[in-house]
Amino acid sequence: MRLRHKPWAKDYLDEHAGIVVKEPQTKKGNWAGVFRNDNPIHVEVGTGKGQFVVGMSLANPDINYIGIEHFDSIIVSAVEKVVDSDIPMNLRLIRANGKDLTEIFSEGEVSRVYLNFSDPWPKTRHAKRRLTHEEFLTLYKKVMPEDGEIHFKTDNRGLFEYSLVSMSEYGMRLLDVSLDLHAEMPEGNVMTEYEEKFSAKGQPIYRLEANYLNEA
Amino acid sequence: MRLRHKPWAKDYLDEHAGIVVKEPQTKKGNWAGVFRNDNPIHVEVGTGKGQFVVGMSLANPDINYIGIEHFDSIIVSAVEKVVDSDIPMNLRLIRANGKDLTEIFSEGEVSRVYLNFSDPWPKTRHAKRRLTHEEFLTLYKKVMPEDGEIHFKTDNRGLFEYSLVSMSEYGMRLLDVSLDLHAEMPEGNVMTEYEEKFSAKGQPIYRLEANYLNEA
Repeated sequence: MRLRHKPWAKDYLDEHAGIVVKEPQTKKGNWAGVFRNDNPIHVEVGTGKGQFVVGMSLANPDINYIGIEHFDSIIVSAVEKVVDSDIPMNLRLIRANGKDLTEIFSEGEVSRVYLNFSDPWPKTRHAKRRLTHEEFLTLYKKVMPEDGEIHFKTDNRGLFEYSLVSMSEYGMRLLDVSLDLHAEMPEGNVMTEYEEKFSAKGQPIYRLEANYLNEA
Repeated sequence: MRLRHKPWAKDYLDEHAGIVVKEPQTKKGNWAGVFRNDNPIHVEVGTGKGQFVVGMSLANPDINYIGIEHFDSIIVSAVEKVVDSDIPMNLRLIRANGKDLTEIFSEGEVSRVYLNFSDPWPKTRHAKRRLTHEEFLTLYKKVMPEDGEIHFKTDNRGLFEYSLVSMSEYGMRLLDVSLDLHAEMPEGNVMTEYEEKFSAKGQPIYRLEANYLNEA
């Protein structure tokens, strides 16, 4: 994603503390308190400009959504999307790194993790940065129950191939795989910005659902 | 595959008993005797007209190959391919059904199973006939050691999606996945008749390698 320097971003995020949770570590184990209900919490890691997580939170009011994004200058776009419309009560954003997940959420506090069009980091020496590397799979496992699911979609063939093998090596179970999501568009699919762009070019979108249950 | 009635097929196969093994059940546990060496045995289930298994046996003289095909009228084409050239010492054909595997091979006797462009059986009620259905995965497991590998390629998206989930549910481990085999053609890839045809049309060829080792 192209990063523009936005010197006003930090102030802007401070002004919208209702949607962008400051010091999210202090909410660890108490996200139900933040949302004031016990609905399941679904987290998108790398939420980008927020189209997916905003769309999902509007479509599914009985789920609480949290979008995590590392870059101030990108998360600002997500905040703008929200304040332009009504702020969904079931949505929060966090400016943080995916690596911080276990500092932000307690064991089993997250019901589902979404990974959408994550950075492919194509060079082998950067494999550890891929959000489906075993180190990240370990983090997700720590904050989810055993039947918690990872839902992952991408247009990047190399990343998807890698992810299938990485999850399988980790002992995860594939629940569903689509190698051309838009060929039979599932009901309720909320598109990300990237998804709109790449599918318009005719590129296949890959998608999988997996969990940590090992029944073998 | 289009089936032509070939009334002379049975006689033709009988004439070539050197390549087409009659009563293969009687060789169970003694395939090393048939090949007169202890080289690993790789079996292609659904060998069709034989281009793959003939090409592999010529390219890899230190592996013994067995192609299994159900239909007389198709396996005849495979035999014709062989008798037109030199008969590779390390190749045999069997007219049998995939379901008969455990009657033909003893435990651990097969080192690898190849599935190439298997019939997709797209209707849900025919799922049991797919060669990656759990009933077949159980058969392959019975004739292979734990680290024995299944190598599967197909142009059929639905069958490949199904197979990834089926193998994962079975507790198998994915070792390698390619979602566009010909984009970075691996060294030593021997194409089947279908593969030539579909890749020429620009369709992606899907491929995976998996085994039964479960290290989770």
